[in-house]
Amino acid sequence: MHAPQSELPTLTADVLARVRARSPRVHCITNAVAQNFTANMLLAVGAVPSMTIAADEIAAFTAGSAALLVNLGTFDAERREAADTAIEVASEEGVPWVLDPVFIDRSQARAAYARALAARKPASMRLNRAEFVALAGIEPEGEALTRYALDSLTVIGLTGEIDLITDGARLITIANGHPLMGRVTAMGCAGSALAAAFLAVEDDALIATAAALLTLGVAGEVAAACANGPGTFAAEILDAVYDLDRDTLVERAKVL
Amino acid sequence: MHAPQSELPTLTADVLARVRARSPRVHCITNAVAQNFTANMLLAVGAVPSMTIAADEIAAFTAGSAALLVNLGTFDAERREAADTAIEVASEEGVPWVLDPVFIDRSQARAAYARALAARKPASMRLNRAEFVALAGIEPEGEALTRYALDSLTVIGLTGEIDLITDGARLITIANGHPLMGRVTAMGCAGSALAAAFLAVEDDALIATAAALLTLGVAGEVAAACANGPGTFAAEILDAVYDLDRDTLVERAKVL
Amino acid sequence: MHAPQSELPTLTADVLARVRARSPRVHCITNAVAQNFTANMLLAVGAVPSMTIAADEIAAFTAGSAALLVNLGTFDAERREAADTAIEVASEEGVPWVLDPVFIDRSQARAAYARALAARKPASMRLNRAEFVALAGIEPEGEALTRYALDSLTVIGLTGEIDLITDGARLITIANGHPLMGRVTAMGCAGSALAAAFLAVEDDALIATAAALLTLGVAGEVAAACANGPGTFAAEILDAVYDLDRDTLVERAKVL
Repeated sequence: MHAPQSELPTLTADVLARVRARSPRVHCITNAVAQNFTANMLLAVGAVPSMTIAADEIAAFTAGSAALLVNLGTFDAERREAADTAIEVASEEGVPWVLDPVFIDRSQARAAYARALAARKPASMRLNRAEFVALAGIEPEGEALTRYALDSLTVIGLTGEIDLITDGARLITIANGHPLMGRVTAMGCAGSALAAAFLAVEDDALIATAAALLTLGVAGEVAAACANGPGTFAAEILDAVYDLDRDTLVERAKVL
Repeated sequence: MHAPQSELPTLTADVLARVRARSPRVHCITNAVAQNFTANMLLAVGAVPSMTIAADEIAAFTAGSAALLVNLGTFDAERREAADTAIEVASEEGVPWVLDPVFIDRSQARAAYARALAARKPASMRLNRAEFVALAGIEPEGEALTRYALDSLTVIGLTGEIDLITDGARLITIANGHPLMGRVTAMGCAGSALAAAFLAVEDDALIATAAALLTLGVAGEVAAACANGPGTFAAEILDAVYDLDRDTLVERAKVL
Repeated sequence: MHAPQSELPTLTADVLARVRARSPRVHCITNAVAQNFTANMLLAVGAVPSMTIAADEIAAFTAGSAALLVNLGTFDAERREAADTAIEVASEEGVPWVLDPVFIDRSQARAAYARALAARKPASMRLNRAEFVALAGIEPEGEALTRYALDSLTVIGLTGEIDLITDGARLITIANGHPLMGRVTAMGCAGSALAAAFLAVEDDALIATAAALLTLGVAGEVAAACANGPGTFAAEILDAVYDLDRDTLVERAKVL
């Protein structure tokens, strides 16, 4: 397979158009810090979020969704039980799911749990460099990242100043984004939520994940032009995702 | 009783003035996604929110409040226990309460629970069409809505492009609002919270509920004029509720 | 010790510069209403927030942090257990911690719990007048406030229209701030979070607490000049904290 770098901006516009047309349901098991911003990001892009973690209904919500997000930002017993049920249902029903192993570099218990979830074959994982090291036990240098993706049968979206997205065979590099994105809580979580929404309408998990990160990166640049700091930026990036069009994607994309 | 359509804008301004003057305490049992926006909406309108669900103190918070909101947006055991205690205290102490049966169309367990709560005589219920169908087992067409309200001894605020508010005897139709309201999470929850705040200062639950939905709908239109998308809209609608005055209500109200 | 009123603006600028340079980790045990705004306030000032309350990892997160915030805004069993562990670890490891006894005037159970935590020697407590009365059993008039601080071996930051900060020996009065600060949920919690971030880089808890409240008060005034109401104000105050500079602090500070 060739790497689809040059087509990524137009592919992203296509995926965005399908999300807006189909309004996919995305169920999110995520932490309380991130829930509101994640829900608003999904609504901004055109998806329909739900967030319950109650044991009595997590199966019904997951089965009725087009994609699932499992975010480890808080790590209580109730969320672990919900994640276990949701992933089981998602695997049975063919619902694609995204793993976001937040802060696993800060807690060995959380890292061990993330490794167990990674073995259950998420369509995609989004994480930063420190989280990758905690998950994989190696630095994401050279071929280590692509080999990890290949061995895990998953797509890795490694975010940072430069985003690297790989399924083991293909590698996409995205240089969009803005420093203010690191000054708003749950921005990474929102990127993972976009990846889930895009997986709901795009079978190629590499494209879905890369399109989500390109969307967020370009929206971040657009938002930064209107914002005076992280508070107004958090609102402006939702507006930018809501408004994002094909021309802006093509003009601004920095994809290698 | 005649239907108070023509007086609703001025009645709403009166209710708003009383909320601002009295700063009623409104206790909210609501989901983590909605808590922050709900609290900010209540503060914007002039009420004082509290949100605890802890078993040791839910009775004290409810008894010390002028109204109670029970929102089923998450459905964990702790919240169900808190709701049970809070409704019992509210019924004993004469504290009016609002039921918001969020997403009961997505989970049979949640729908069954909502039916049990509806039987405990909330002053008002706010819900959308799909939630009404899950609750009542019928479409809200013709006389089905008013009959349900009459049989349930409650006010129904059915929200959508057009809001319908009825106590069984009277029916008010409100055509205000803006599509961006559907792109911000917890906007419906915020409408229910306003209904609770208004019930704290207005005994006629039909007027309180209709005034809350008119306030939110008009504020949504004012906010949309200042916003570029859902992110800035979420901030602007809080500003608009905070600033809303009698003239704007009278000029913009579309009440039938 | 003389009271450092006249130096407070420049000391505050120094503390801010250190936070921005060192990016201290601040672990927060706080309520779901406040988590998002608190995290964004900490990111705006340059700190790195974390929020887990899971029993398996609270010790690791606390030990790896430069300061700890314990906010009683919700009062469930899980948070109480987390607070107990976190305070124990913080005391052993020399991590300074801030107590924010939210709403203890509304619940006797919560007030009793706050008194037990206050006895474990937080570096600083931030609370309003009603909360102080519930905690100390006396009005904060005359020498009651300084005596309480002296007896408790802690700094008290009493917030209101005028903020009073004392360690028992010294007393600082700050008259900055804006009424819109009372119309945004978790604004007090955000002040406590700033105090924690400042304690991470400033050993004098009186200076750290006063600098945090001066930062928030001045930022509130700057934000109010750009805001049309509480919704836009909540975003603007984050921008103002992010942008705050020495000249603005010196020009605007009203410290006695």
